[in-house]
Amino acid sequence: MTWKMLMFSATAIVIGGVAGLSVIAEADTPAATAEGSPIFGVTLPPGYRDWQFVSIAHEEGDKPDIRVILGNDIAMKAFREGTLPFPDGAIIARLAYKYESSARNNAIFGRDQSFVAGEPTNVQIEVKDSKRYAGTGGWGYGQFEDGKPNPSEKVVNSCFACHSKLPPATDLIFTTYSK
Amino acid sequence: MTWKMLMFSATAIVIGGVAGLSVIAEADTPAATAEGSPIFGVTLPPGYRDWQFVSIAHEEGDKPDIRVILGNDIAMKAFREGTLPFPDGAIIARLAYKYESSARNNAIFGRDQSFVAGEPTNVQIEVKDSKRYAGTGGWGYGQFEDGKPNPSEKVVNSCFACHSKLPPATDLIFTTYSK
Repeated sequence: MTWKMLMFSATAIVIGGVAGLSVIAEADTPAATAEGSPIFGVTLPPGYRDWQFVSIAHEEGDKPDIRVILGNDIAMKAFREGTLPFPDGAIIARLAYKYESSARNNAIFGRDQSFVAGEPTNVQIEVKDSKRYAGTGGWGYGQFEDGKPNPSEKVVNSCFACHSKLPPATDLIFTTYSK
Repeated sequence: MTWKMLMFSATAIVIGGVAGLSVIAEADTPAATAEGSPIFGVTLPPGYRDWQFVSIAHEEGDKPDIRVILGNDIAMKAFREGTLPFPDGAIIARLAYKYESSARNNAIFGRDQSFVAGEPTNVQIEVKDSKRYAGTGGWGYGQFEDGKPNPSEKVVNSCFACHSKLPPATDLIFTTYSK
């Protein structure tokens, strides 16, 4: 951990730390818990699995995944209209899955070309609240496995550490809307 | 083209061929046209871009793409509940995008690992109508570029030619629901 990250962490603890609100999960959404993410208190929003589609990506690396980005209504409106910064209340969900070669599809296509989504790995949630999260560009972060917040402060701090490297004009969001 | 495909094509022309209904595109959906796909008469359903998320995949090959599969309400209910075969009225949309390395993301992550969705390539639509499309497993097919149906019978025949290689228990659908 660098000094810069430690300084950010200390700042974020002062800014965040309010317990997340209890949420009731809708059908088809992994169970949410009252407990939020460390530092930011971000909880898993009810019904996020049924939100609309923003875009998709594939990340190679130590644990290759294929991922979809979904948004709540406020986020989707901003994505479609190109509104930046995102308004308060916008929530973006990133659902990642194991990146798996499909032997069945490859046999049908006659060559090794098909990669599909395997088991879910984790869900990351970003919540825009320009006052509550003023110290982190207006965004609060959380990572969830099996519907439960990852308790690691290091993990949740790595979210902003990475997003903060984006140009300010992006409002620190990697994804753009796919038409 | 094999004899089997020619035979299928002839059968499908007899079964299909009814002109697609005119549809009015909703906001944020590429303009649909009254003209449907060859053979099946499948049109671009209004609002398909805002449908819910089924799963994602990446296809290598001559033209690598990254793709999302969305479903209308009837299809989503069947996907979630594991209902097979899909009921009449189910529509599945496959939206494909150019598979692009992201130089910006790679610079942030410190290694070449990030692939994102570029420009849209085409949209494929599958409509379940067990009577109208009885000769092709109950599914009608269409491929659309820039909101317009691809006029090639060869292209649209290749849809069923490929899907028909799936085990019957799949109801000839490649994709399963990602939780």
